[in-house]
Amino acid sequence: MSSDGAGPGGPASGGGLLAPVWAGTRAEAVTADAAWLRAMLEAEAALARAQARLGLIPSEAAAAIDRAAATLVIDPAGLAKRARQSANPVVPLVSDLRQAVPGAAAFVHRGATSQDILDSAAMLVATRAVRGIVSDLSGIMRDLGTLAERHRDTVMAARTLGQQAVPTTFGLKAAGWLAGLMHARVRLRELRLPAQLGGAAGTLAAFTELAASHASGGQALALDLVELFAEEIGLAAPPAPWHAERSPVTELGAALVGTARALGKPAVDIILMAQTEVGEVAESSSGGSSAMPQKRNPALSVLVRSASFQVPAYAQVLGQVGEHERAAGAWQAEWLPLREALRLTGGAAETAAELVAGLRVFPERMRANAELTGGRLVAERLSAHLGPDELKRILAAEGPPQVAAELLDPGAYLGAAPDLVDRILATYREQP
Amino acid sequence: MSSDGAGPGGPASGGGLLAPVWAGTRAEAVTADAAWLRAMLEAEAALARAQARLGLIPSEAAAAIDRAAATLVIDPAGLAKRARQSANPVVPLVSDLRQAVPGAAAFVHRGATSQDILDSAAMLVATRAVRGIVSDLSGIMRDLGTLAERHRDTVMAARTLGQQAVPTTFGLKAAGWLAGLMHARVRLRELRLPAQLGGAAGTLAAFTELAASHASGGQALALDLVELFAEEIGLAAPPAPWHAERSPVTELGAALVGTARALGKPAVDIILMAQTEVGEVAESSSGGSSAMPQKRNPALSVLVRSASFQVPAYAQVLGQVGEHERAAGAWQAEWLPLREALRLTGGAAETAAELVAGLRVFPERMRANAELTGGRLVAERLSAHLGPDELKRILAAEGPPQVAAELLDPGAYLGAAPDLVDRILATYREQP
Amino acid sequence: MSSDGAGPGGPASGGGLLAPVWAGTRAEAVTADAAWLRAMLEAEAALARAQARLGLIPSEAAAAIDRAAATLVIDPAGLAKRARQSANPVVPLVSDLRQAVPGAAAFVHRGATSQDILDSAAMLVATRAVRGIVSDLSGIMRDLGTLAERHRDTVMAARTLGQQAVPTTFGLKAAGWLAGLMHARVRLRELRLPAQLGGAAGTLAAFTELAASHASGGQALALDLVELFAEEIGLAAPPAPWHAERSPVTELGAALVGTARALGKPAVDIILMAQTEVGEVAESSSGGSSAMPQKRNPALSVLVRSASFQVPAYAQVLGQVGEHERAAGAWQAEWLPLREALRLTGGAAETAAELVAGLRVFPERMRANAELTGGRLVAERLSAHLGPDELKRILAAEGPPQVAAELLDPGAYLGAAPDLVDRILATYREQP
Amino acid sequence: MSSDGAGPGGPASGGGLLAPVWAGTRAEAVTADAAWLRAMLEAEAALARAQARLGLIPSEAAAAIDRAAATLVIDPAGLAKRARQSANPVVPLVSDLRQAVPGAAAFVHRGATSQDILDSAAMLVATRAVRGIVSDLSGIMRDLGTLAERHRDTVMAARTLGQQAVPTTFGLKAAGWLAGLMHARVRLRELRLPAQLGGAAGTLAAFTELAASHASGGQALALDLVELFAEEIGLAAPPAPWHAERSPVTELGAALVGTARALGKPAVDIILMAQTEVGEVAESSSGGSSAMPQKRNPALSVLVRSASFQVPAYAQVLGQVGEHERAAGAWQAEWLPLREALRLTGGAAETAAELVAGLRVFPERMRANAELTGGRLVAERLSAHLGPDELKRILAAEGPPQVAAELLDPGAYLGAAPDLVDRILATYREQP
Repeated sequence: MSSDGAGPGGPASGGGLLAPVWAGTRAEAVTADAAWLRAMLEAEAALARAQARLGLIPSEAAAAIDRAAATLVIDPAGLAKRARQSANPVVPLVSDLRQAVPGAAAFVHRGATSQDILDSAAMLVATRAVRGIVSDLSGIMRDLGTLAERHRDTVMAARTLGQQAVPTTFGLKAAGWLAGLMHARVRLRELRLPAQLGGAAGTLAAFTELAASHASGGQALALDLVELFAEEIGLAAPPAPWHAERSPVTELGAALVGTARALGKPAVDIILMAQTEVGEVAESSSGGSSAMPQKRNPALSVLVRSASFQVPAYAQVLGQVGEHERAAGAWQAEWLPLREALRLTGGAAETAAELVAGLRVFPERMRANAELTGGRLVAERLSAHLGPDELKRILAAEGPPQVAAELLDPGAYLGAAPDLVDRILATYREQP
Repeated sequence: MSSDGAGPGGPASGGGLLAPVWAGTRAEAVTADAAWLRAMLEAEAALARAQARLGLIPSEAAAAIDRAAATLVIDPAGLAKRARQSANPVVPLVSDLRQAVPGAAAFVHRGATSQDILDSAAMLVATRAVRGIVSDLSGIMRDLGTLAERHRDTVMAARTLGQQAVPTTFGLKAAGWLAGLMHARVRLRELRLPAQLGGAAGTLAAFTELAASHASGGQALALDLVELFAEEIGLAAPPAPWHAERSPVTELGAALVGTARALGKPAVDIILMAQTEVGEVAESSSGGSSAMPQKRNPALSVLVRSASFQVPAYAQVLGQVGEHERAAGAWQAEWLPLREALRLTGGAAETAAELVAGLRVFPERMRANAELTGGRLVAERLSAHLGPDELKRILAAEGPPQVAAELLDPGAYLGAAPDLVDRILATYREQP
Repeated sequence: MSSDGAGPGGPASGGGLLAPVWAGTRAEAVTADAAWLRAMLEAEAALARAQARLGLIPSEAAAAIDRAAATLVIDPAGLAKRARQSANPVVPLVSDLRQAVPGAAAFVHRGATSQDILDSAAMLVATRAVRGIVSDLSGIMRDLGTLAERHRDTVMAARTLGQQAVPTTFGLKAAGWLAGLMHARVRLRELRLPAQLGGAAGTLAAFTELAASHASGGQALALDLVELFAEEIGLAAPPAPWHAERSPVTELGAALVGTARALGKPAVDIILMAQTEVGEVAESSSGGSSAMPQKRNPALSVLVRSASFQVPAYAQVLGQVGEHERAAGAWQAEWLPLREALRLTGGAAETAAELVAGLRVFPERMRANAELTGGRLVAERLSAHLGPDELKRILAAEGPPQVAAELLDPGAYLGAAPDLVDRILATYREQP
Repeated sequence: MSSDGAGPGGPASGGGLLAPVWAGTRAEAVTADAAWLRAMLEAEAALARAQARLGLIPSEAAAAIDRAAATLVIDPAGLAKRARQSANPVVPLVSDLRQAVPGAAAFVHRGATSQDILDSAAMLVATRAVRGIVSDLSGIMRDLGTLAERHRDTVMAARTLGQQAVPTTFGLKAAGWLAGLMHARVRLRELRLPAQLGGAAGTLAAFTELAASHASGGQALALDLVELFAEEIGLAAPPAPWHAERSPVTELGAALVGTARALGKPAVDIILMAQTEVGEVAESSSGGSSAMPQKRNPALSVLVRSASFQVPAYAQVLGQVGEHERAAGAWQAEWLPLREALRLTGGAAETAAELVAGLRVFPERMRANAELTGGRLVAERLSAHLGPDELKRILAAEGPPQVAAELLDPGAYLGAAPDLVDRILATYREQP
């Protein structure tokens, strides 16, 4: 251990120590360096297979590349250092892959550019991470649906600007969280993350040249290659190369921001409802404190919220405008925040699933809080019944307002809350 | 004039002096304080009309409110000051509107909350601004389509990381800009900006109470009211009140970011192509300089780009997670950046329309630049033909490479560029 | 009124309607379009005076320019539109100023570039806005000092992650707010906002040429001119032109972010303490609600917090890296967010001053809340006295812990809170 | 390898594969998980030593803790997972440390809270990372000083908005980069990163209680402990606990943003000057391309710029306003972006050092470009000599302007550029 705290050997430089929200989650695994490396190799293999299908390279070469890509073991840290010289990790990766297939080296990465491989790999990693997120969202939504239904009529105080406003039900609050997540899930499912294949600068020139001798002609075959490549790698076929048209990245980022916020909403509300003075909910296995033995920290909510603070910041770096046919900096700046946005959102989803599944709800505290102000929670109702002047007189007096008890019951002023719960649940159940 | 530069009277505090990109544009007008005020009044009028249609308030009252809302003249600066006490401008606005309809005062804003009016007004303003943006985008796209077609085969150097890479055509570059804008326009058109109506805390309680005496029952009628209100104001009917579920705002922001970037892309490329040493394009009425009489600044591109730098920052403030049924700060923080994101994007669209319509293209400079490196622009091709070792030998020699002139012609190595232009144009023409 | 809500004439496009936090404040006035215009004219006048002092232009010309700059009336909206052609408002401003001094037109803006004038004006506007902010901060700090002293020993529950943790005093909480503001004020006072003068591209070429015939020689005199210009305009003399070295802008932004957050901290805490269920503080003239007559919204806190959400986002646009000797977009993108960051911070300061001056504190509620958990607030203390196992046993039992009442008194476990108050107040009083 | 690309075992989840700018740099090592863990253990050890110095715990216990902290081997990934339950990694760390010192377990972490340890560790990690950055900056500045001196009079075109404007020298450009870095280094050196010690909620309660039996009294001794702890850990003593007053974090972030931008400025200019059509500089070992053998990519500049795009986004998450005595989310959100901002800035500094040390400068291309427009580069000068009308006539004519050749020489219109170089270098040499 040197004097500045640096480890002696290759540092495990960025594990989850500082991000308990995704530490040990599936999102960490599918976005790790190893998973990105694997995805880049899959992109190279898919390209070779697609080219072989069109007769552009020998089938045997494609098979060899495919095998090597599936089994090649590369040290990510070593490769990362070698990536500095070319400002991207694909150059050394291609070199390693070529060495692994001596007889087919010339057919590796044929006609492609680094960005083809890296962008396609990024979309592959994103597809897998998003799939996990959607699955976690679905679990959370199921549990929220149950909560909403069970507490359809559970009276609690709605709060605006931190102040008790009018009665609502906990079911409607849970249904509101559900509505936000429905929205987020739709956005995630609508994503059609595209493969990227354009060659050196998006003209498919080397592919066209390669295909020139073919009967069907160069340009058309090059366009076919893009389709086949997308098919082989399992991504959407792009309308055109998008090396310099970054809306797929911008939109992926926007969908993650939407999701992180939709997850953050219950987290914020739960933190507030779990306050000592409010006590309406608690996390099931609430977090301990290193100093205070009695504390029941809303640890999972805090983790989810920590992610919802970060994702928008990282997403802002995604899809920035770059120069000409490949950006000098803006593209290279996308990789890290994309990974982080994916795994923070994924970790937040997995954490929120645990949070919601174990949420403990205390209806009696909700009711007690709703009655805390002696009827002032239904002042809007009283105002309509008594008129504002009479109401003012009544509210100014000490003690509970002197009106019919029935008028004061928060449970008798729920408005359309139960119907809104039903409506949101119906929409939810209609979603595929 | 006081010693600190403050004007003596009410300041015209935020005109376009610091934002020439939108100064005097339609986007400025439709997002001005006066336009927001008008939209809030329209929301109040639409609410009254919807309530009258359901028989919840007298038709005469609704008519009076409608008339007053259409004609009431309010000083925005004065109202803004009065808004400080309640932290939103709707409270004093309602007060003014009530004063304007003495006989119907009790029917103004009946059962609504400030957020209903402000959120609905924001969506109304946004709808109008977005409509203008879409219209400008369509004009730009038409012009880019023409450019792409005309320059389908105009040879130029593609550039990656600032370096000439391989040949491309200016048509493909223009088609790439078009592709980005197509994407942005789809997103803008897909927006279904919803009306907001929930009452004090999203339960529709006061509306339900108001409707309780009706045959069709309270809750159902309250839900009907939301639909009618949306119809009257001309916005989408929301699946549920979204006072605390801000995805409509997040997604509006994301669509504006996507648009600002899609507009920024041609701006960046034009600035680079217009560099003195490159000289491939020029703005028609290029900007003068206060110091250098010879300079031809790409002023319009610079303005567009200034917007594309700002919009993502403002949009980040939109749709943040808030507390409970109304956020204490996060909601109030949305108004200003929403306006700014709308008018910067709108100004950028109007400015880009002017830019693209007047763009001067110099094909001969493009060709000359593509030939600047004596054939090195087609090194990828040479490498495929000659092998990397022979190529290295040739490139190392002084002067132009000693190979068949035909091999060196950048125009003979365009790959699928022309086909890609056709494909993008075909997709564009299929868009409604 | 057209169908899209746009006013018929020139719109008052950006008043405070959407920003009650600064509507009608001094910060609005000193950052208004008119104030920026005035500052640009002051910059032109200061340049002329400085040049006259060095004998570079006739004194009569400088005097004429000075007079015209002080009196010229310009319509900001009209100028803004004319600014589009050159992508900055200085070009048309110089034109107007030249017309106003027919005899001295050739001496207006002599050797300067637009950025000299705009950057200097921005620093002038910022200086004035910052002066007001510092003054407001000082008032807030005085009031917080009083609060901290008065409530040095007022027992309340400290809360971490929303949970009651251990006892503290309200005095320490107020002193903590004060500490944050002290920090922010130091940063603001340390700012040495510089004048900018570099000529066309920062080489002072035209000034040097102008001075070439002088005995003292061209270069030295040009450097002298920069000093004199700074003196005349009342800004710091820059070590070198900073047209392309934007740290003054980055640091101004950082100081504003720090201030906005230091103001946001009491706002957040007050919102939480004012919650209906907590009730430990209230705003003096708490905000009304358009729907709920009983509500006492923490309106001023909400306004302050709305600013603290926005300033960091806008500040991010300030000081971005630009190209060569003047950025094509990044510089032009600074103007609007700089104005907004200044006036949001200024408005927040003025609003927070009102908030703190009128804050109502309820010590009995603080004490009651601290005793709410029947002694669990001092579990840390009990743990030290009884050991963790015994404590666990005691806490698990129903009702208040069965230990000596004195041990349970939150007021007997304040730690160094009162001493920390004294220490912070002592530091505060030492600050100039 | 599972179907979604996740590795079978514990993933090395966040190495430098996606961040070649810091892969393998010292910045990676000093910010790795292992380094953070080490710093947390150092904080625990420093606390024990400080407490022993005051006689609050036995010296033998402190010695045992110190030894254990220095040698304990912990798997970061395992600890990270265990951190989820308490939402921070200190709780399981303390548990492990206690197990490692069976006889002194009760004296581990005595009276402290997790935030004390994590914040202090963060400042320790930051101190070390910043030290490395300052060292790299100093190397870069030395090299830029040499460049500035050597090219004090090397004529090149200054460019504004991408257009050639007037002549300047490459020395002044390099001196401008140096000026930015001087500024950044001052800010970094001014940082006084403080230790954090406050106990459960910043009142030092448990320390005070622990010290109560001592002659010198509880509160005073607790304050002494803070000083001693800071001394032992090697950080600045804080004026007061800053658990909820995050200016140290905000300012650290601001200093990193300033540095990342100061490093980004030469990167941007070098990318532009290295453009194929401009060719004024080249990186020494320019990056290869996976597709184009002839390309000489400005790889190091691109890496530096990729960092300068990211740091401001991450820094925005640092120092956000949190609730009460510990934020529920905002604090936990700081850890990851702080690490990333540190290592991106550090990686950028190390990369920029390599970039600047190897920069190749081509004065003849600079001169050639400056003469490209046949004298129009000195149009400002001509305008002063000939008047604007005559100039316009001359510039409108074909070919080079018909004026005395001497007037057209860009080298004769350098203004104060050489003097400015001298002045900046003088300031630089005065800096300690």
